[in-house]
Amino acid sequence: MPVKLSAPAAVELLPVPGVELGIAEAGIKKPNRKDLLVIRLDAQSTVAGVFTLNRFCAAPVTVAKEHLTVGKGIRALVVNTGNANAGTGEQGMAAARATCAAVAKSLDCAAEQVLPFSTGVIMEPLPVEKIVAGLPQAVANLKADNWFDASQAIMTTDIVAKAVSRQIKMEGKTVTITGIAKGSGMIHPNMATMLGYIATDASVPQAQLQQMVKQAADASFNCITVDGDTSTNDALMLIATGNSGVTISDANRAQMQAAISAVATVLAQAIVRDGEGATKFITIKVEDGRDAAECKQIAYAVAHSPLVKTAFFASDPNLGRILAAIGYAGVNDLDVTRIKLYLDDVLVAENGGRAASYREEDGARVMQQEDITVRVELGRGSAEAIVWTCDFSYDYVKINASYRS
Amino acid sequence: MPVKLSAPAAVELLPVPGVELGIAEAGIKKPNRKDLLVIRLDAQSTVAGVFTLNRFCAAPVTVAKEHLTVGKGIRALVVNTGNANAGTGEQGMAAARATCAAVAKSLDCAAEQVLPFSTGVIMEPLPVEKIVAGLPQAVANLKADNWFDASQAIMTTDIVAKAVSRQIKMEGKTVTITGIAKGSGMIHPNMATMLGYIATDASVPQAQLQQMVKQAADASFNCITVDGDTSTNDALMLIATGNSGVTISDANRAQMQAAISAVATVLAQAIVRDGEGATKFITIKVEDGRDAAECKQIAYAVAHSPLVKTAFFASDPNLGRILAAIGYAGVNDLDVTRIKLYLDDVLVAENGGRAASYREEDGARVMQQEDITVRVELGRGSAEAIVWTCDFSYDYVKINASYRS
Repeated sequence: MPVKLSAPAAVELLPVPGVELGIAEAGIKKPNRKDLLVIRLDAQSTVAGVFTLNRFCAAPVTVAKEHLTVGKGIRALVVNTGNANAGTGEQGMAAARATCAAVAKSLDCAAEQVLPFSTGVIMEPLPVEKIVAGLPQAVANLKADNWFDASQAIMTTDIVAKAVSRQIKMEGKTVTITGIAKGSGMIHPNMATMLGYIATDASVPQAQLQQMVKQAADASFNCITVDGDTSTNDALMLIATGNSGVTISDANRAQMQAAISAVATVLAQAIVRDGEGATKFITIKVEDGRDAAECKQIAYAVAHSPLVKTAFFASDPNLGRILAAIGYAGVNDLDVTRIKLYLDDVLVAENGGRAASYREEDGARVMQQEDITVRVELGRGSAEAIVWTCDFSYDYVKINASYRS
Repeated sequence: MPVKLSAPAAVELLPVPGVELGIAEAGIKKPNRKDLLVIRLDAQSTVAGVFTLNRFCAAPVTVAKEHLTVGKGIRALVVNTGNANAGTGEQGMAAARATCAAVAKSLDCAAEQVLPFSTGVIMEPLPVEKIVAGLPQAVANLKADNWFDASQAIMTTDIVAKAVSRQIKMEGKTVTITGIAKGSGMIHPNMATMLGYIATDASVPQAQLQQMVKQAADASFNCITVDGDTSTNDALMLIATGNSGVTISDANRAQMQAAISAVATVLAQAIVRDGEGATKFITIKVEDGRDAAECKQIAYAVAHSPLVKTAFFASDPNLGRILAAIGYAGVNDLDVTRIKLYLDDVLVAENGGRAASYREEDGARVMQQEDITVRVELGRGSAEAIVWTCDFSYDYVKINASYRS
């Protein structure tokens, strides 16, 4: 069950002027399930995104990147679940292009103005005909107040829909930011996550929007992992419609970036809280390193260790496993006698071994919590990094041993 | 349950002249369990080893490396289970030295002539007094025909004891090689595995013995992974007593190396077949790469993917997960259109997608097997690498969520 995570209420999700969303049940993998989403954008909108670095990146990722560079302006995004259209070769590229062409025809724009996204099983042909057949339903359904249904339409193994809205005051006007995301397994984003869409009605030039989405991803989706598997389909998109009348400039960019990053962080953490089989939400902070890269390397080693993750599942303070993971993280000149390990506020290890003050019952108490922070002080610099992850339970195996059935 | 692996029969394990083994029930973690092993070597023996690269390497690993460099000749090895004496700081170093001193006193040699080894839970103080109290029982028990009991005495979460003997003819004489190993979880050796001991009665100078153990480890223990966790205590030791009267030279070194590597490979594969919760034994071959390093990097990415491992557990040919793992392995200039993926003899993917000839029932048939080979052709060179691993089951979680209880 998701860890301290409930679905957003529909009324909490604020429309973003300039954005309309339409949902359909296209029967892509199973019937009677929202599995197709069309997002229509006002003409003046800018769109930027970051995508997976997986070499087997999906056909829609390749096509979306192409269409972004064409520069005609993006008028629509189309997302299907039930099939990732990844590992599908030339046939998959044709299917992604056909999807864009069909959406373009429905909305009276060019195919290059449509960005396609897919998520689901890998290496199976995308049933384009089902998507095309479902489009009229999605287009008829287009409306601004549809973010809640949209967040449901992009779910796969997710238990809880992920969505959040924020409003900020800028230049005396109100700017809205609403975002949705999906993801639960195959989560180890490298540039972005499974699928995330954030829209604002501020006006942001394309180049700045690209910097903004990169920075937001680095502070959020690029800090999470469920199972260390980097998806073929990761994409985080940031949309700016400009309908609020507020234009982003040097004077207000930091405020806007902070709000975008905050929305991205809520969504990224929600993905971990809804991680496949998760029963604990674990924050791993590595501090006092020489650079952020080595801090992140160590944080990910701890976050990916099946032994650490199963100990958290069992609420067992078998914390030597964390030391072992720090030790094999690949930072080869690490002086282990300078390292301090904390579990929340409890000092667990120092001087290369268990702290004299450590008592098993203190470790056991923290391990019972649903939210736990592992803090590692490396004692060799001032850099730091953070990674959010979850534990490893029977249900992770169950979910992934039966995903296709 | 172990995958096609049964315990060796005691009679199959051949004594190695010059080596005696003694076992005790020292009650280190639990009572009534063989948990202490002493190996006594004839004076002319040479010993070489490879050890974990984990920065939190255990105190006994540090002490064993020290004692090997002293160069007085090694006369005994002492192994305890139930406690890893890792992450134990200065106190742990003192405990490892005290263990060596006690063994030295029992066997009338110097402490620097004893190599200590520990395996078990990390970051708990080693109960030296229990080891010292158990030593008389182990020493009284010393005999050449004791490899079977020795293989049991070093087990922790292992279900099946791992041991094998081989004999080869050299210069008209018989040379015996017998090896034992333990390990089931925290298996991703980096230089060696959890614990392995191989002895021969050939005569091998120290420097050559060191090359020989390194080469054997690279072809065996350094090709296996269960969970990607590199232990703090890995060690593979190779002992040469010389009692056969056969001396290794340039003329017969290749034959000896082949026999040693064969024994090491049997033991390494046994560890995977007895991997925690294993139901499948999976061989991952990556071929036609630019160099062995990139082949191994890709093989390990596939072997470590929880999604791939749970698909094997489910016998579900959800083989797109293998493509995803190849894609995120970190070989950034990989041309996925040149890659071919085979499951045993079934061509699964080529030209960036599913092979036209692939039929789901063929994949499903292979996935039902207990032994499966995943073969990846990269199509960009002639290097190759192999990794052996197992699947990821409910029982892995169960075993590791309850290890200390």
